[in-house]
Amino acid sequence: MTPYIHEVKYYECDRMGIVHHSYYARFMEEARIDLLNQLGYPFEKMEAEGIVSPVVSLSIDFKHPTTFPDKISIEVRVKEMSELKVTFSYTMKCAGALVCRATSTHCFLGPDHRPVVYADKWPDLTAKLAELTI
Amino acid sequence: MTPYIHEVKYYECDRMGIVHHSYYARFMEEARIDLLNQLGYPFEKMEAEGIVSPVVSLSIDFKHPTTFPDKISIEVRVKEMSELKVTFSYTMKCAGALVCRATSTHCFLGPDHRPVVYADKWPDLTAKLAELTI
Amino acid sequence: MTPYIHEVKYYECDRMGIVHHSYYARFMEEARIDLLNQLGYPFEKMEAEGIVSPVVSLSIDFKHPTTFPDKISIEVRVKEMSELKVTFSYTMKCAGALVCRATSTHCFLGPDHRPVVYADKWPDLTAKLAELTI
Amino acid sequence: MTPYIHEVKYYECDRMGIVHHSYYARFMEEARIDLLNQLGYPFEKMEAEGIVSPVVSLSIDFKHPTTFPDKISIEVRVKEMSELKVTFSYTMKCAGALVCRATSTHCFLGPDHRPVVYADKWPDLTAKLAELTI
Repeated sequence: MTPYIHEVKYYECDRMGIVHHSYYARFMEEARIDLLNQLGYPFEKMEAEGIVSPVVSLSIDFKHPTTFPDKISIEVRVKEMSELKVTFSYTMKCAGALVCRATSTHCFLGPDHRPVVYADKWPDLTAKLAELTI
Repeated sequence: MTPYIHEVKYYECDRMGIVHHSYYARFMEEARIDLLNQLGYPFEKMEAEGIVSPVVSLSIDFKHPTTFPDKISIEVRVKEMSELKVTFSYTMKCAGALVCRATSTHCFLGPDHRPVVYADKWPDLTAKLAELTI
Repeated sequence: MTPYIHEVKYYECDRMGIVHHSYYARFMEEARIDLLNQLGYPFEKMEAEGIVSPVVSLSIDFKHPTTFPDKISIEVRVKEMSELKVTFSYTMKCAGALVCRATSTHCFLGPDHRPVVYADKWPDLTAKLAELTI
Repeated sequence: MTPYIHEVKYYECDRMGIVHHSYYARFMEEARIDLLNQLGYPFEKMEAEGIVSPVVSLSIDFKHPTTFPDKISIEVRVKEMSELKVTFSYTMKCAGALVCRATSTHCFLGPDHRPVVYADKWPDLTAKLAELTI
């Protein structure tokens, strides 16, 4: 897969002069959505089917700050898959330096707000995600 | 009406060390929603009735920057009312200094996405807004 | 000049399902910074010289909502230039439809926090901006 | 200590209709700064002394979504203290329901960008934080 590139925006920097930590959860979302696009499963198509995908948990270990106009390269992999949840891992780099390592866990809820067994619903996507497992 | 107080957050400041200008549109929304609460028309009740209220236009004249942990006092008045639109005016002050003057114009859309003649739908609110006209 | 493209992010949409109006001021900033890059005057170089460029005023007329994953094309022009201020105008379009028209006015402050006569400081940039005047 | 109350804003909700997960890192910051205020160590005073306090890591386990106009009650405790780092824990509740549990770890950097041994610099604050340890 091609890593996702986030170009840091001026407004993402706080008064320490660095990207405010809350934005990294957004960069993770951008990269995750880009991965699903690359796999042929655009997020908006899932939503059009009435599926939503809330974040169950997230964690970020910050190693190196970034600032405008840095370009952050984000590699997304799959860390863990269970019947109802997927955990993605993220490695962000900028100019060779490690920016952060992060994880996020997601479930999928159907139109009835009940958890979706995604391997049944999207067997092809599930197989592709399994290949991305670290 | 009681002015709305916004306490500036650390994360609202950019790397110039001042509140990023994009946040003022959010402070206007907070103050507008607070005004509707004071008038007995909570925004969430309108939404529960299937009414949404998109912003038609906005303008802001910045006079003085603010930063964390300033407290901004926001006075909301009504500048203009037509059959389908309301224009609010905002005066923001901090420690006696004028921070900005702003306006925002709103319409109301019903569950069928068509404009709502708000004077018909909410005659009481309309009368109260008319009293707040400058 | 090449129009700037903003790809709408999932997290920029509010619970009306459309991009929250406060984000448009950010898209304007992205497009303005991109224009300065195209003109050979990266914003970060100005900042490195100790120049900051606060927003003096802004206005937006919304015509058509956008949502994830729309691509917004933003054309920036110069509306007005005075000794101390520049006013940019913005035309945002999406899939042929007019999204909004907007303006923002900026001044430049030097390391001593005093206004900068930009035509003296950057005659070449000033000439290029003058060519972009509507 | 008094729990911090965050009133959910309209603009914090995404198109799933719930608070976007990236905002919880901001609520944690608000609650942490409020705690330091309660302990008599306003964050802006630290910054005025040239101290900055970057986030080293954070984690959030989401249990229950929130939406506008919920009021989230946030209790902050100290989970761990080492020579250079403090880990805070957060319990967020809304109308009796557990919203999330979270942690964030912070270090302190002096004007020379070097880590600060905070027990030496602020012995009184350190003692107060130790009392808040779970």
